[in-house]
Amino acid sequence: MSERIVVVGFGPVAARLVDELLPAVRTGLVQLLVVGQEAEAAYNRVMVAELGVGRTTPEALAMADAAELEADGVDVRLGVKVKRIDRARQHVVLSDGTNEHYDRLVFATGSRPVIPNLTGLNPDPASPVLPAGVTALRDLRDAAVLREAVAGGKRVVVLGGGVLGLETALAAAEEGAQATVVHNGPFPLGRSIDRGSGSVLTSSLRAGGVRMAGNARSTGVETAGPGGSFSALLLEDGSAIDGDLLVLSCGVRPRIELAEGCGLPVGAGILVDHHLRTYHEPHMFAIGDCAEVRCPDASCLDCRTATGPSGLVGPGWRQAEWLAEYLVVLAQDGQEAADALEALPTEKPGVVVLKARGINLALAGDNQADPWDEELLEAGAASGRARRQISQWADPEHGRYVKMTTRGGVLEGLVAVGMPRTAAELVVLFERSSELPADRSLLLRLDGPDQLDSGATSNDPQRTVCRCAGVSAASIEDSVLEGCSTVGEVSKATRAGTGCGGCHEDIKGLIEKHFQATAA
Amino acid sequence: MSERIVVVGFGPVAARLVDELLPAVRTGLVQLLVVGQEAEAAYNRVMVAELGVGRTTPEALAMADAAELEADGVDVRLGVKVKRIDRARQHVVLSDGTNEHYDRLVFATGSRPVIPNLTGLNPDPASPVLPAGVTALRDLRDAAVLREAVAGGKRVVVLGGGVLGLETALAAAEEGAQATVVHNGPFPLGRSIDRGSGSVLTSSLRAGGVRMAGNARSTGVETAGPGGSFSALLLEDGSAIDGDLLVLSCGVRPRIELAEGCGLPVGAGILVDHHLRTYHEPHMFAIGDCAEVRCPDASCLDCRTATGPSGLVGPGWRQAEWLAEYLVVLAQDGQEAADALEALPTEKPGVVVLKARGINLALAGDNQADPWDEELLEAGAASGRARRQISQWADPEHGRYVKMTTRGGVLEGLVAVGMPRTAAELVVLFERSSELPADRSLLLRLDGPDQLDSGATSNDPQRTVCRCAGVSAASIEDSVLEGCSTVGEVSKATRAGTGCGGCHEDIKGLIEKHFQATAA
Repeated sequence: MSERIVVVGFGPVAARLVDELLPAVRTGLVQLLVVGQEAEAAYNRVMVAELGVGRTTPEALAMADAAELEADGVDVRLGVKVKRIDRARQHVVLSDGTNEHYDRLVFATGSRPVIPNLTGLNPDPASPVLPAGVTALRDLRDAAVLREAVAGGKRVVVLGGGVLGLETALAAAEEGAQATVVHNGPFPLGRSIDRGSGSVLTSSLRAGGVRMAGNARSTGVETAGPGGSFSALLLEDGSAIDGDLLVLSCGVRPRIELAEGCGLPVGAGILVDHHLRTYHEPHMFAIGDCAEVRCPDASCLDCRTATGPSGLVGPGWRQAEWLAEYLVVLAQDGQEAADALEALPTEKPGVVVLKARGINLALAGDNQADPWDEELLEAGAASGRARRQISQWADPEHGRYVKMTTRGGVLEGLVAVGMPRTAAELVVLFERSSELPADRSLLLRLDGPDQLDSGATSNDPQRTVCRCAGVSAASIEDSVLEGCSTVGEVSKATRAGTGCGGCHEDIKGLIEKHFQATAA
Repeated sequence: MSERIVVVGFGPVAARLVDELLPAVRTGLVQLLVVGQEAEAAYNRVMVAELGVGRTTPEALAMADAAELEADGVDVRLGVKVKRIDRARQHVVLSDGTNEHYDRLVFATGSRPVIPNLTGLNPDPASPVLPAGVTALRDLRDAAVLREAVAGGKRVVVLGGGVLGLETALAAAEEGAQATVVHNGPFPLGRSIDRGSGSVLTSSLRAGGVRMAGNARSTGVETAGPGGSFSALLLEDGSAIDGDLLVLSCGVRPRIELAEGCGLPVGAGILVDHHLRTYHEPHMFAIGDCAEVRCPDASCLDCRTATGPSGLVGPGWRQAEWLAEYLVVLAQDGQEAADALEALPTEKPGVVVLKARGINLALAGDNQADPWDEELLEAGAASGRARRQISQWADPEHGRYVKMTTRGGVLEGLVAVGMPRTAAELVVLFERSSELPADRSLLLRLDGPDQLDSGATSNDPQRTVCRCAGVSAASIEDSVLEGCSTVGEVSKATRAGTGCGGCHEDIKGLIEKHFQATAA
């Protein structure tokens, strides 16, 4: 008997789930209804800032084609909201007035931007009405607003010193806007980095043409622009930062109202177990930004240290892939067979890469301890466990900084600024939990003027190039051998580069290497 | 007419002066009287600690042979004090009851240890009477006291975290004593180094078997040992550090009483101009630890930034050498010819090297600024002068740390711990005011596991190996070619290694290199 699966939301993670379920849809094993609130089918939201500065096109961001899916038998509803879920009757109530039955329901509702509590902004988080000239840079319409400001060489104020805010400001400055980042604390990226990398990063951003306003507490927006539009961001100290466009980049919050409204337990996100099932309701699931994997088993060590939704697309895609398999086995072989599947592996702490021209930053794990912080270094070093160790290279005048935090020789944290090859190597070592060389200064040589890379494992074909989609260098090289010669073609063939875009340069490098080798 | 020169004091600097004057004594151009307070002729005071731990012999420390000098015509008086100087009559009054006329008088009175103001110690600085079991480790008798404690595996407490104190404690620990260093502040070497190197150095000292008691303010000594001898150092917080021998290593003070007593102007030391002449009395001179070069000319830039006697033997030897030439020209060709001699060049800030097995530390210049200290980095960066720049490598777990403070690419300060080759190279770059490579991390490679040293200028034959005596690698290699095959022989032939001894390993390396090359 065919199972009816309803997917609520149609972002990148839902698109991947739909993709993976297509074969089962085609054979009639499952029926699939996807409900998307936006007028467009899934597109790559992580690249909206790139679109906003005119570096990519809406077409390149598309991750699904509604017409193709319909042709394959998927029921796609765009511009339609799920108003509520009736768990007793197992149906969803849609904004177009219809009710739709489900056997399985998947929440892929994603997240929404945090709207800071500023005088002059509407603080209703569910449906904020922002003044003209204020955008959260979340969807295609927001991108168009930014596009206009950048093309006009306007003053763009970015509120928030996270990765997306920094990337947006840098790209906007490079494309001709006057960009200012306003952030709390002495340096951007908050607790993810340390003072050293924060200081070097700030200098690099300034050198990249971005004005950095740190230690700034904003209190309100002034809307004295044309037609009551944004004119300045007001700060606590009584000063103001004038601008034509305010980009809010203050993080995101999982969309959990629908789940909450039908009585499902929620934390920061919709709570699910290691099979992505909601608590007490095993035929409802959540994936991506809206899902918080934290099982009800109090003795589960992984969940005790879990930190909520990552906000990264990679883990969402891995959930979508896993869940598709689960749902197919469930439809085909029943509950017992599905439950016999291995649970989704716990995500490692994410690697964050800042993608920008001329600035290279990679970070992962905990970077708070300094080489002389006895207390932090001893933390967790109980019961025979090794003590943490720190190695650090600081050369701020040349925009270089790296800190390696290891335990037993294996990285627990890394941050590297201005040292792309060292950063790449450290990321590989981090992800594999490989032991670092005893003389950590060897790693600095990768960014030496002689660019020694013989023997560097960052040439390892098995290393992950695209961390979002989990694609190795070998897979990309294979696709190039089979005829792909642009990043776009490689992305289509392998999915590499379809997430945050941080690996585009790396993919380009692999393509060039191939053609150079062929030419030689 | 033969001039009569009286040298007051017979330490290493006086010995060098006498040595240089010998030819003129032999020809009868000058008459020379040397008055030494100790029973022995000049010996290498810097190595007294080495003697105290049994690593060298009194014979090896000897720097002059009274009998030989007498045979050459020098009048040597040992165990005799100069009680006072009668400037009007131009004679010195000696403790043996004689008066001796001088045409020229040279103060080479050196310095005496600082005796800290502790309850239980006699604070009279001119002639302290120390309790049994307390020594300032300044002369051969002090060395014998330490020797006995070390040989007996006793507890040695070193008060003071200077280079000599640290070297003494390390050597004592290595030779079987239980050694503790008590010092002010969070790390030893005070303001010469920074927190990073201080921290790494402290760990290395601990690893070398030395107990380190930092942030300790001592208030008194307890003399409850056998026969009222030292039993413990008392601290301000009420605690005590037990021990059998207290070595005071709290720095030295120039011996200036004689000069002061005859009305010569003094500062920290006996004030002399760039011709080493005392103020207003151009036939009196001062050299070595007792001399403070600071000319009366208020517009002299060098003297405005001068910091008093260096306490190092190298500058004293250069003064002795220069003064010998001046005195000979004076005796031979008269005042005008002597005054036409080029003045003694201003000393560069000294390079300090800690010599100890298993610990390598080199430092020079100002190391206080950290990479993020905007204020310190901007200091002095006025009128188009470049700003200071800092590069820093910290790997405390492996006992490695280096900080390079540059301005316009040239070192203004350096500190390196646990990186002997990097340190040697930095010292060369510092002394030559050479520009560092833009990528400072290249310097770390010198201490990499592969010991890349091709092209490293630290193999440069023109580099200074012995900084005390100013001897190049080429001179040492020549002496080896001419048959020297031990450090002692090289020292005799070239004077290299006769000062602080910090270059002994380097000399050994050059000898070994020669014999390996010969064998190959």
